[in-house]
Amino acid sequence: MAAILPGTDAGARDAAAAHQDRLTKPQGSLGRLEELALFMAGWRADPHPRVDLAQALVFAGNHGVCAQGVNPFPQEVTAQMVANFRAGGAAINQLCRVAGARMEVIALDLDRPTADFTAGPAMTEEETLVALNRGAAAIDAAADVLVLGEMGIGNSTVAAALAAALFGGPAAEWVGPGTGAGAEGVRRKAEVVERGLARHPGRDPLRVLAALGGREQAAICGAILAARAARIPVLLDGFICTAAASVLHAVDSRLLDHCLAGHVSAEPGHRRLLERLGKRAVLELDLRLGEGTGAALALNILRAALECHNSMATFAGAGVSEG
Amino acid sequence: MAAILPGTDAGARDAAAAHQDRLTKPQGSLGRLEELALFMAGWRADPHPRVDLAQALVFAGNHGVCAQGVNPFPQEVTAQMVANFRAGGAAINQLCRVAGARMEVIALDLDRPTADFTAGPAMTEEETLVALNRGAAAIDAAADVLVLGEMGIGNSTVAAALAAALFGGPAAEWVGPGTGAGAEGVRRKAEVVERGLARHPGRDPLRVLAALGGREQAAICGAILAARAARIPVLLDGFICTAAASVLHAVDSRLLDHCLAGHVSAEPGHRRLLERLGKRAVLELDLRLGEGTGAALALNILRAALECHNSMATFAGAGVSEG
Repeated sequence: MAAILPGTDAGARDAAAAHQDRLTKPQGSLGRLEELALFMAGWRADPHPRVDLAQALVFAGNHGVCAQGVNPFPQEVTAQMVANFRAGGAAINQLCRVAGARMEVIALDLDRPTADFTAGPAMTEEETLVALNRGAAAIDAAADVLVLGEMGIGNSTVAAALAAALFGGPAAEWVGPGTGAGAEGVRRKAEVVERGLARHPGRDPLRVLAALGGREQAAICGAILAARAARIPVLLDGFICTAAASVLHAVDSRLLDHCLAGHVSAEPGHRRLLERLGKRAVLELDLRLGEGTGAALALNILRAALECHNSMATFAGAGVSEG
Repeated sequence: MAAILPGTDAGARDAAAAHQDRLTKPQGSLGRLEELALFMAGWRADPHPRVDLAQALVFAGNHGVCAQGVNPFPQEVTAQMVANFRAGGAAINQLCRVAGARMEVIALDLDRPTADFTAGPAMTEEETLVALNRGAAAIDAAADVLVLGEMGIGNSTVAAALAAALFGGPAAEWVGPGTGAGAEGVRRKAEVVERGLARHPGRDPLRVLAALGGREQAAICGAILAARAARIPVLLDGFICTAAASVLHAVDSRLLDHCLAGHVSAEPGHRRLLERLGKRAVLELDLRLGEGTGAALALNILRAALECHNSMATFAGAGVSEG
């Protein structure tokens, strides 16, 4: 599948690397800022990549597995938070404003939660495809970078189920407190995930997505694929966003080559997921909120990297002696 | 000494904490962003602290120890880079623009390097006091936060000497590649530091600063103290900036309570220094440039933290159910 999608442009990346070595700093001394600039150069096929338009998409969904009592917040909070996103009152609104991202929230049939995966597949094949397509359709092809986030009461349980199905290991290794479950809540989540895994033993990635996932997880997969087709690099957010992206990784690991891990969250399964994906997070700030908050914060660092890359003087231009 | 300087305002900090718990997010879910907001509230004595003016100061100095061949770049590069700062071409210029900081570079007698500390004290008492005062005088009392950086060919050797003198341990534990020394260069730096330590066995912090430090290190100390007097929190940069600040820590560890570690650099001694100071860095991006680059990058995160703190909706205001 990755073979028919765009790859990184080695020529643009090499040209960007040669440019970096002419800038007034010891070679390599900007560390990850240099890596980020080269990453953007390769994916944008431009030795001097810019972020004029940063698009942030927050997908929201509701989950039938909430019937199992996996979350301290009532399911109504998903729709209430969508209203809060639209009114500009959530954390992600402030962080997108600071980072200069245009944010949209896409509520996916909140009045029709997915089915409880302990009783049957969460979504039909058609529901899964509709959600994938809604994610793909949300991409603005003019964007230079995409920030992905999600909201959905119960979806840290969904994410743990996806991670356990895709990568194996006991459910207890993948569940965590999410937005606030205590020790008893975490045990309940693990037990619910184990029942879901037993109910849906198949490991075909897209079937796993339908059986255990939700609409916002499918939409995230669709958005990542559509971004790839348009050469738009993606900033992934936390555990839930990364677990959704892992479905694509299980199809073909190269499908996430254009994605950066914006941060590593306080949810213990997230670090483990990033290790499996071979990605090192840009930030580590103990966030455990989701919404795209960690990805939006990382956009500040990405912008800083490109400003250095594009606007610093060269040794020759500034009359600075090289070592 | 700390007893006569302002401390954190517990009332403002407590009020900020109570406000945080009313915002539309699970309590604590913004992790370090919440900590940063409370830190600012305490030091600014304001439950809703803002960063209207961020001041960045880059102090530059030259070092007699360069005669020992401790750096791959010629000493002229200090003045060349000062010119580059003034022309807007360096990394710190771009990073201050991105983070919204007003930057000033203060060149400290570049045509009169300090003395070679392997032969005698780097600075006289008077030279040390003059540099301390120049640092203090550079503070804008109207600033809401101070970003500190430095430039000075040879000053990673100076920083290693200060760290070893203040915290003990062999020089080899504190020296590193700096901006580009190879293995042989690192060995030479360690040997030069050992000779400096043997020449200046006293451990009184201000005498250590004079004997082994430089003008930009003294200026950083002066700026940190003047910022404290004005209740201006400080973002420290990398190894060299942190080693300078360690002089104050050795006088009284509370003198750095208003300082944040903006980042942890790739220079191995920096992580060790931050452990000794009990500070956890905001960012870890493998930088090894200095200039204030890591501190300026951290300012983006600080601004994001305050935007969430000051502009998010409350549960009651947004009609969102609490868990």
